Amino acid sequence: MSLLTEERNHQVTKVKKGSIVTPKGFAAVGMHTGMKRKRNDLGAIFCDVAADSAAVYTLSKMQAAPLQVTRESLAKEGKLRAVVINSGIANACTGKQGEKDAYAMRGQAAGHFGVPEHQVAVNSTGVIGDFLPMVTITEGIRQLKPVVGSEGADQFCEAILTTDTVTKQTCYQTEISGTPITMGGAAKGSGMIHPNMATMLGFVTTDAKVGHADLQTALREVTDLTFNRITVDGDTSTNDMVLVMASGVAGNDALTPEHPEWSTFVELLRKTCEDLAKMIARDGEGATKLIEAEVRGAKNDEEAGRVARQIVGSDLVKTAMFGKDANWGRIIGAIGQSEAEVNPDHIDIALGSIPVLVNSQSISFSETEASAYLDNDTIHVIVDLHVADGFARAWGCDLTYEYVRINASYRT
Amino acid sequence: MSLLTEERNHQVTKVKKGSIVTPKGFAAVGMHTGMKRKRNDLGAIFCDVAADSAAVYTLSKMQAAPLQVTRESLAKEGKLRAVVINSGIANACTGKQGEKDAYAMRGQAAGHFGVPEHQVAVNSTGVIGDFLPMVTITEGIRQLKPVVGSEGADQFCEAILTTDTVTKQTCYQTEISGTPITMGGAAKGSGMIHPNMATMLGFVTTDAKVGHADLQTALREVTDLTFNRITVDGDTSTNDMVLVMASGVAGNDALTPEHPEWSTFVELLRKTCEDLAKMIARDGEGATKLIEAEVRGAKNDEEAGRVARQIVGSDLVKTAMFGKDANWGRIIGAIGQSEAEVNPDHIDIALGSIPVLVNSQSISFSETEASAYLDNDTIHVIVDLHVADGFARAWGCDLTYEYVRINASYRT
Repeated sequence: MSLLTEERNHQVTKVKKGSIVTPKGFAAVGMHTGMKRKRNDLGAIFCDVAADSAAVYTLSKMQAAPLQVTRESLAKEGKLRAVVINSGIANACTGKQGEKDAYAMRGQAAGHFGVPEHQVAVNSTGVIGDFLPMVTITEGIRQLKPVVGSEGADQFCEAILTTDTVTKQTCYQTEISGTPITMGGAAKGSGMIHPNMATMLGFVTTDAKVGHADLQTALREVTDLTFNRITVDGDTSTNDMVLVMASGVAGNDALTPEHPEWSTFVELLRKTCEDLAKMIARDGEGATKLIEAEVRGAKNDEEAGRVARQIVGSDLVKTAMFGKDANWGRIIGAIGQSEAEVNPDHIDIALGSIPVLVNSQSISFSETEASAYLDNDTIHVIVDLHVADGFARAWGCDLTYEYVRINASYRT
Repeated sequence: MSLLTEERNHQVTKVKKGSIVTPKGFAAVGMHTGMKRKRNDLGAIFCDVAADSAAVYTLSKMQAAPLQVTRESLAKEGKLRAVVINSGIANACTGKQGEKDAYAMRGQAAGHFGVPEHQVAVNSTGVIGDFLPMVTITEGIRQLKPVVGSEGADQFCEAILTTDTVTKQTCYQTEISGTPITMGGAAKGSGMIHPNMATMLGFVTTDAKVGHADLQTALREVTDLTFNRITVDGDTSTNDMVLVMASGVAGNDALTPEHPEWSTFVELLRKTCEDLAKMIARDGEGATKLIEAEVRGAKNDEEAGRVARQIVGSDLVKTAMFGKDANWGRIIGAIGQSEAEVNPDHIDIALGSIPVLVNSQSISFSETEASAYLDNDTIHVIVDLHVADGFARAWGCDLTYEYVRINASYRT
């Protein structure tokens, strides 16, 4: 049984109105430079100290230039003072010029904040193939004044959005050996979201003290259970990244996997990332609802994850959910397609608390009740494979006319 | 270099208005029994002799009952006299009762046609989870009178449709060692279409003489290059099957892989299956156009196939094509996601004859010209990866409002 299941009570509590600047040591800012029409399009997170940091990146073979630059920064010392990001233009498929621009962005931010270049991470999100307007970026960076107040976090959260309709931020708190530890998160998502770090950005700050390598381990483990469990449209992007910065200002003893409270810290990170991941899925392009697939009884957790992702990734399931149609045949179709081990005669499916399939056979249920349930803005699809005790959750959204409208006219 | 590339001239020619009854030895029929509202919903192909036959099936772990029955028929002798199929109800996820019904359908057809049970194949397509109305089926089978005229093929083609808007049939001819050989095909597709034998049915008849095992080898090879290269929505079904019957009535010497004209026969099969596959993709649910991705310069043919399928399978590419938007960033995204070996700085992309990306960098092209090109009902996306000489094609369709409409209200 993984340490990460919710069954253990880790006393991790949500902080209302908390954000990436709630943990001690962090400030943030966002501004409008004109790369996007109206909303903020340039932002930064700044840390008072060199924060131990870790990151995971898109698996796309076409990684954008800024990811290479950020990777290079982190490789040197594993510590960051600042992150700078723009939205509107992704600086992807921009060749040598793109690399040059990403390095310039990093250099200018380092100069402006008075920190070493390798303690700065950069990223960009938006249209692929266009060059960054470096005059605008340069001028913008000079004006970035991070603040500790929540307005700084709000500005930053807006500055990372593309087609997102809402900003996404969260904050959790726990206590480790008597010391309060806070963690905040900000994210963007919307389209091109799929398991394996598709187009999404996540920024997590914490005042816990954790070394770079251990933080990397925890982030990888948690990303697999959260950001890699969401899908909007099955498309992966060139610029995805999740970054964690740990300031250590809380004053706890350094956390390592050997620390008795390590699992509490991992749970804090999991809660933060899961919250952001679900916000991304819910705000998928054109989505009207969040779909959570919970798969029990699989051969192992990995296979359960595969089935759960196949369900939330199926265009047929997604359109059925949009149409409030309790069409479990499409869920069975997705299960069958997942290649996970199944016992074809012993599969149960429920929509929320309404069983629709028992032992792989249709049972009578009220279509009216089912349709009323599917009218909720969060739908739980619960599957029991009765093979072993593998368990997983995955999240997605419905597929709507609006998704088509947005994506048939993204550039125009 | 595969024998299957189009560069060899095999003298395979299309037969206008040809169908599954054009090859010698075959008759067909279709009728309306009431399982679907209006269109034919029960059909059969009948062969004068025991035809050497071969089939490939869905890879879904939730294979419907009729597939097991058909598999059992073919396992015995590899020969078929008849195929019976209904549409409207898939007889999938129907447990023991479903198996019983599929066997009953086979037994009744065998009795009606006066042939051994194991020389009958059955299948069903439609809604998952409902039981077959066996009284209707039994009564219907008794009335099936296959005819050699093209009206029988037309009726059959209608009887296998679900949400398809048009029937799909084709016919090709060639000469092998001086003997004319004919091959006909019928198919249904529409939704739940994805590589690896997703919801689609294909029936191919030929008067060539080919043994069961060699026919199976050829079918597997050709399916990989045709039916497994189309996608509508990434969903795989429980009932997919492609079946080939070879009557041998043409009178040619038996074809084997050692025969000097074997590759001509394989090419005949490839052309027939590719034609059907493209018709299925073009008639994808809600589709307004066929998208063909042609990938050159991959590490090998397999990787080229993976990239081509990723492109035609991307919801973002599909919506861009619907919106007539020359958004090559999404094509690059799909290439990057395919995990095929790429040289990130040396990728070329063209839309038809309009280059939009050269050496991975945007080149200026007329958006008006590109948009006019994308208004065609067939779009060619041509990618050169410049890695080696792997080549492949794949086919899909655009993603439209209509797809969402159809699938948000399939059962209701």
